[in-house]
Amino acid sequence: MYQAGDVRVENVRDPAIENSTDAIVRITSACICGSDLWPYQSMPFKENGRRMGHEFIGIVEEVGAEVLGFAPGDLVVAPFVWADNTCDFCREGLQTSCRHGGGWGAAGVDAGQGEAVRVPQASGTLVKLPVAADSALMPSLLTLSDVLCTGHHGAVTAKVQPGHSVTVVGDGAVGLCAVLAAKRLGADQIVLLGRHTDRTELGRDFGATDVVSARGDEAIEQVRELTRGDGTHAVIECVGTEQSLATAIGVVRDGGIVSRLGVSQYKSVPMGFDTMMRNLTLTGGAAPARAYIEELMPDILDGRIEPGRVFDHTIGLDETPDGYQAMADRKALKVLIRP
Amino acid sequence: MYQAGDVRVENVRDPAIENSTDAIVRITSACICGSDLWPYQSMPFKENGRRMGHEFIGIVEEVGAEVLGFAPGDLVVAPFVWADNTCDFCREGLQTSCRHGGGWGAAGVDAGQGEAVRVPQASGTLVKLPVAADSALMPSLLTLSDVLCTGHHGAVTAKVQPGHSVTVVGDGAVGLCAVLAAKRLGADQIVLLGRHTDRTELGRDFGATDVVSARGDEAIEQVRELTRGDGTHAVIECVGTEQSLATAIGVVRDGGIVSRLGVSQYKSVPMGFDTMMRNLTLTGGAAPARAYIEELMPDILDGRIEPGRVFDHTIGLDETPDGYQAMADRKALKVLIRP
Repeated sequence: MYQAGDVRVENVRDPAIENSTDAIVRITSACICGSDLWPYQSMPFKENGRRMGHEFIGIVEEVGAEVLGFAPGDLVVAPFVWADNTCDFCREGLQTSCRHGGGWGAAGVDAGQGEAVRVPQASGTLVKLPVAADSALMPSLLTLSDVLCTGHHGAVTAKVQPGHSVTVVGDGAVGLCAVLAAKRLGADQIVLLGRHTDRTELGRDFGATDVVSARGDEAIEQVRELTRGDGTHAVIECVGTEQSLATAIGVVRDGGIVSRLGVSQYKSVPMGFDTMMRNLTLTGGAAPARAYIEELMPDILDGRIEPGRVFDHTIGLDETPDGYQAMADRKALKVLIRP
Repeated sequence: MYQAGDVRVENVRDPAIENSTDAIVRITSACICGSDLWPYQSMPFKENGRRMGHEFIGIVEEVGAEVLGFAPGDLVVAPFVWADNTCDFCREGLQTSCRHGGGWGAAGVDAGQGEAVRVPQASGTLVKLPVAADSALMPSLLTLSDVLCTGHHGAVTAKVQPGHSVTVVGDGAVGLCAVLAAKRLGADQIVLLGRHTDRTELGRDFGATDVVSARGDEAIEQVRELTRGDGTHAVIECVGTEQSLATAIGVVRDGGIVSRLGVSQYKSVPMGFDTMMRNLTLTGGAAPARAYIEELMPDILDGRIEPGRVFDHTIGLDETPDGYQAMADRKALKVLIRP
């Protein structure tokens, strides 16, 4: 991506092992993230562009001398940040704050929307997939990179449990996965706020019990009507705007938790005196996907959940610019790329 | 209180049973809260004034027909809001959001800085004290009304546990009780931010391992130096200003929790993109003191904790206006009133 609206597919140098902890992975499935749409809307021009993509599955081609547990030919999934998985933060399940980790597409690091990638800290980052590369489960397994784990992070940090009511703000792929995750953790009532009928219908399939298409104060009123005036125990905010956050805070029950997943476009959070008297909690953030992959994968392998249904478009690598535009135009919910 | 700086001791009608769930309590010990200083600094003139005080111990004089478990002569402590202790919020330990509760000094309700008080929802609100009215433990038991339970609420909601590091922002009585509570829950390192030496010395007695007298960015830098650059797992914010909250957010470790206890004088919280990537949590709020009284009382009765040391001035009811001024001038840490 060179600037807002300007995504180009270009030939770059093939990745090569640079550190003994690296692996080279040939990508077989990648995708475009809702969070990629923020720079697609607003990124200033950047001379050498920015590598894009942070979600991928691929086949290991080569491993550095210190990489343990992986060999050429292994099918692997990568979480959306790389991490050593051994430092104190990683051991606490916060791989997004790894002391030796980083993001895909950062300076000197490849990104996921491409043919191949150098994976730093490969032993800590990659997770093997026990299926063939042509498995029909591939779209669902690809969601372990980010979107499913992100939705799950929202439900976990919002402490969703059996008997709880949950509001999910936003019907994008993360919102739908948050619905699925809340259902999986036993939520009784799941209110989905969204206005795209095809998406909210998928949300109902994933477990939403109510759909509210209104926004702002009207949405708050409707959620309160659905919950005896109280609001829900948990709210998972999956948009990232000031308005969606205000809505989230408006529909949470006293003592409840707002977990935020949408990349925050706001600088401050409207949580003054009233929210303090109500003992509201704000939590969530960038999901440590790596912490959740092993826990969630069996549910995909057994067919208990089908998060891959969030992919409604599949394209080749050359069509990636069109994929961005389709998502920006809301013509695609989430785009799968097969390089 | 009629307005900022204007506290008067006046004769009012004696309290009487109004509802069958009421009790009448003759107050033996009361106090002035740090939160009372906010209106003392800024309250606009109010024609009929506002009853003040929400922390008291007293002797039951009369009970309504539906009050169970209490009889005239019982020595009792009241938490700083009254509550039925049976509704769903109360059962969850959030008596501050009780469906049939409210605050002392609200319209038609007496307050604690006085000779006697009508206690609504007496069965749910009051807790018996198993000591004589002249017990030397009285100051410590009085902290069960608010300040100890508030500090404990901060430590509990910040999930303080053995091995954790904690920063307490503010060396008022709540801050000192937060230190005590964090120590009680097993925190290894407790950094107290405060600039009043007599108070921070008491903080050290209560368990603070480090004291930082700087403010703002300098304080943040010093706490980070004390914690390998990381900040602390938990931060308990005990002031309530925009600056103290910003400091709290600045000294918390990635994945950590800021619990706020200081009555918020701010309208929004500076928690944008960076704090989201760092997975910070904001929690805390008005403490449901009633939920904690039974848990904390044995530690006072056994002498394991002495939170009553936060009282450094004792006055009669007539001297209450001077008590406010002494606290506002920082000449008194916390003032005990014996009507």
